[in-house]
Amino acid sequence: MAGMTPELEDLFTFLRFPSISTDSKHAGDVRACAEWLVEKLTGMGLETTLHPTERHPVVVARNEHKPGRKTVLIYGHYDVQPVDPLHLWTTPPFEPEIRDGKIWARGATDNKGQMLSHILGVEKTLKEKGELPVNLTFLFEGEEEIGSPNLAPFLEANRELLKCDVIAISDTGMVAPGVPTLGYGLRGIACCEVTLRGPARDLHSGLFGGAVANPATAIAHLIASLHDEEGKVLVEGFYDDVRPLEDWEREMWAKVPGVSDEDFVKVTGSLNLFGEAGYSSAERTWARPTAEVNGIGGGYQGEGSKTVLPAEAFAKFSFRLVPDQDPADIMKKVQAHFDKHCPPGVSLLYEGGHDGKPYHADPNGPYGLAARRALKAAFDAEPVMIREGGSIPIVQAFRDILGADTLLLGLALADAQIHSPDENFPVENFESGIRLNQALLEELAK
Amino acid sequence: MAGMTPELEDLFTFLRFPSISTDSKHAGDVRACAEWLVEKLTGMGLETTLHPTERHPVVVARNEHKPGRKTVLIYGHYDVQPVDPLHLWTTPPFEPEIRDGKIWARGATDNKGQMLSHILGVEKTLKEKGELPVNLTFLFEGEEEIGSPNLAPFLEANRELLKCDVIAISDTGMVAPGVPTLGYGLRGIACCEVTLRGPARDLHSGLFGGAVANPATAIAHLIASLHDEEGKVLVEGFYDDVRPLEDWEREMWAKVPGVSDEDFVKVTGSLNLFGEAGYSSAERTWARPTAEVNGIGGGYQGEGSKTVLPAEAFAKFSFRLVPDQDPADIMKKVQAHFDKHCPPGVSLLYEGGHDGKPYHADPNGPYGLAARRALKAAFDAEPVMIREGGSIPIVQAFRDILGADTLLLGLALADAQIHSPDENFPVENFESGIRLNQALLEELAK
Repeated sequence: MAGMTPELEDLFTFLRFPSISTDSKHAGDVRACAEWLVEKLTGMGLETTLHPTERHPVVVARNEHKPGRKTVLIYGHYDVQPVDPLHLWTTPPFEPEIRDGKIWARGATDNKGQMLSHILGVEKTLKEKGELPVNLTFLFEGEEEIGSPNLAPFLEANRELLKCDVIAISDTGMVAPGVPTLGYGLRGIACCEVTLRGPARDLHSGLFGGAVANPATAIAHLIASLHDEEGKVLVEGFYDDVRPLEDWEREMWAKVPGVSDEDFVKVTGSLNLFGEAGYSSAERTWARPTAEVNGIGGGYQGEGSKTVLPAEAFAKFSFRLVPDQDPADIMKKVQAHFDKHCPPGVSLLYEGGHDGKPYHADPNGPYGLAARRALKAAFDAEPVMIREGGSIPIVQAFRDILGADTLLLGLALADAQIHSPDENFPVENFESGIRLNQALLEELAK
Repeated sequence: MAGMTPELEDLFTFLRFPSISTDSKHAGDVRACAEWLVEKLTGMGLETTLHPTERHPVVVARNEHKPGRKTVLIYGHYDVQPVDPLHLWTTPPFEPEIRDGKIWARGATDNKGQMLSHILGVEKTLKEKGELPVNLTFLFEGEEEIGSPNLAPFLEANRELLKCDVIAISDTGMVAPGVPTLGYGLRGIACCEVTLRGPARDLHSGLFGGAVANPATAIAHLIASLHDEEGKVLVEGFYDDVRPLEDWEREMWAKVPGVSDEDFVKVTGSLNLFGEAGYSSAERTWARPTAEVNGIGGGYQGEGSKTVLPAEAFAKFSFRLVPDQDPADIMKKVQAHFDKHCPPGVSLLYEGGHDGKPYHADPNGPYGLAARRALKAAFDAEPVMIREGGSIPIVQAFRDILGADTLLLGLALADAQIHSPDENFPVENFESGIRLNQALLEELAK
C-alpha cells in the first residue's frame, strides 16, 4: 500500500490475524498470531519463547538482563473480542484500512495497536542506540478477552523469569486526543450466566399458556430484581466494601477533558444518561460498581411470530467492581440473591464465569512520577490522572504474584469502539505510543 | 413403504411439503403444497380453484350444490409452523415416519393430518355412494400460522361462493385418546413486539456500564411489569370484559379425562405448575386470558462471555383472550401499559402483530347435537364438551362475515407436540377422522 511506513505494515500484518480467543473455531488463528510475534521479537534480537498453556500460548521476550539496572515488564494481549454484529462494520474487521487518520480493524486499539507501539519503540531504541537503558521483559498473552485463565498460573510458575521492579501496560483509556493519561485504578469484574428451565420443551402458548411458568417471563423478573428504579443494585451487601471517592478525585475528574456527561451522551450515542443518583458519569464508570446484562435470550428469535412458550431462557451477567469489593464475596452474594428471587415454576442453573479484583495504586510514587514525565515528553502536554471503568484482572495478579505495581499508560480514545463494530486507533496514537515507550524506559532507568 | 394404505400414502405426500408460511424462503413450498391439493381434489370430482392472495393461495373445492340440501363448509389449513430447534427432532420434520402407531412430522396433527382425514372421508363417501348427502364446500388456506391476514378479505369477496349453514373444523384438541371432543369456545389472540433502544451501538460494559441504561435490563423491567408474583396480569383493565366461568362448565371440566393438573404436569414435562390462583389448569388455559413472552433477545448470544452493554433488546408477546375481551381494546391497554412502564434511558418501538377475537357458541343447538351424534358414531363413545386454549381467529370471522357457527371437532391429542419438535398424530385418529367426516355429513343432512 502506498505511503505505508514499515511500522504500519507490521501493524496491518498483526491485525489481519482473527485471534478471537473466546471462540474455539479460531484457536488456530490465535496460535498463528502468537507465532508471528515470536518471529518479530526474535528478529529484533530479543530472546523469545512461546509457552503453550491449556488454551492459548504466552509469548515472553527479553533483552540481556544485567545487574544494576531497573527491570521493566511490559504486558499486552494479542487476542481480540468477537466481531458480531458483522453487518455493522464499514469494512471487514480483519482487513485493516486507514481512513480519516485512523486505523480501522478489530484489535486496532484493544490491544494490538497499543501493544505493537511498545514493541516498535524498543526496536527503534535498539536500532538507534544498540542497547536499552533497562532490563526488559515483554509478556504477551492470548487470553485477556476471556479473563486470562492461564496467566496467573503462568506467573506463579515463572516468578524468576518475570521478576521485575515495575510493570507498564497500554490497554486503558486516554481521556481526549492529545491529553496524556495515567491510570491509577481499574474496576474488577465477576461474570456468570443463569439459565431458567420450565417445561421439558417449547410449548404451544395457546394450549398451555397460563398453566405453567414462562421462563422468559421468569428471567425478566429475576433480572428486574437486581436494580431499583434509579439504577441502584439491590443485591444484599453489594455496596458494603465500596471505598468512597476522595474529594481530590472528584475535583480533578470534574476538570478532566472529554469525560463530562455531555461527552458520555455524545460518545455512546444515547438519548440520555441513566445511572446511580449523586454521581457524574465519570464517577459512575470509574469508581462505582455495576450489575449489567451482557446477553439475554429465549424462545423464538426469527422473522415473524411464533406462539411458543419457551422451555428455557438465559441471561449473561457481568458485575464491575471497585476497591475494596472482592469478586468471590460478591458472587456469593449474587448467587444468594438469585436463589432468593428465583420465580416459582422454573429451575435455576447458575454457571460462574471469569473474575478479577479491582485495582488501585498511588500515582505519586517514584514510578508514577517517571510515567508522568514520559507521558509529558511523548505528548508534549501535562498528563491527567484517572481511574478506569474497564477491568484488567491480571494487574491485581501482577501485584499479588510478582509484587510489582503497574503503570497504566492508556492510548485508547473513547470513540475507539473497542468490543464494538468499527473499532479504530488513530495513526497519531500509534506513533505517540512508540515515542512513549522510548521515553518511558529512559525515565524508569533514572 | 410396506403396509402403507393409499390414505397414508396421500398423507405422507402432503406432509413432505415444507409449507412454513411465516418464512418467506418457503413461499414456493407453500405454493407447491396448494397445487398438490388442487390436483387431489380435482381428481375426486370436486370443482376446485386456486385463489392467489397477497401471500399464500386459498384453495376452494365444491361438489354440485343442489337446492333443498344443507350446505356445509369444512375449513382447514395446509401451512405449518417453523421447525426450529431442528436438533430436537428424532427424525427430520418433513420426512414423515410411522413409529409406535403414530405419524411423526411437522403438520402431522396441525393441521394436515386432521384436514386430510376430511378430504379422504369425502372421497370414501363419493366412492361408496357416488354422492354426498349435503352441499359441500372445502376451504383451505395457507396462512393460519401467521394469523390468516388474507382470509377475512377473501371471505368478504366470496360470500356467495362460500355461503353455508354451518362450518366444521378439525384443528383443536381431543381431551384423551378415544374420548370424542366437541369444542364450543376458543381463546382469541393479540400479538406484538417491543424493541427497546439505548446507545447507538453495543458498548464496552466496563467503559460505559453504570452511565447509560442497559436495554436488556430495561426490557426485563418492562416484562416484569406485566404480572404480579402470582401470575395475574397487571395491565390496567385487562380483566374488565372477561366472562366468568359458569358452574356447569367447571363441574364438567373437573370430570373430563386427560386434563387434570397432574396431566398438565406430565404432558408439559414441567417440575410444577404455575398460574392464576383459584383456577384449575384446564380453566386457566380454556377460560382465562394470559400475557406470554414468546421470544426475548438482546446482546451476546454465543459461546463464552462478551462484556457488552447491548444497543437494543426485544420481546415478542402474545396475549390469549377469552369472551368478551376485544383484541383491539386489549392492545390499546397493553400499549398504554408499555408506555407507562417504559424504563428511563431507552426508547420504545412498538409493533403490532396479528390478532383474533375469542369465540363461544352453544353446544346444545341442532348443529351441536348433530356433531355430538357424529362424534359418538365415529368413536363409539360419549363426547365431552370443552373450550380450547388455542386461537382460531377465523372462526370469529366466519361468524361475522358468513353468519355461520363453527363445530370444533378436534382430533389433536395433548402430546401431539404441535408447534414443537417431534410433532405427531396417531394413525388411529387419522382413520377415526375419516369416519367422523362421513358420519358428520350424514347427521348434518338430517
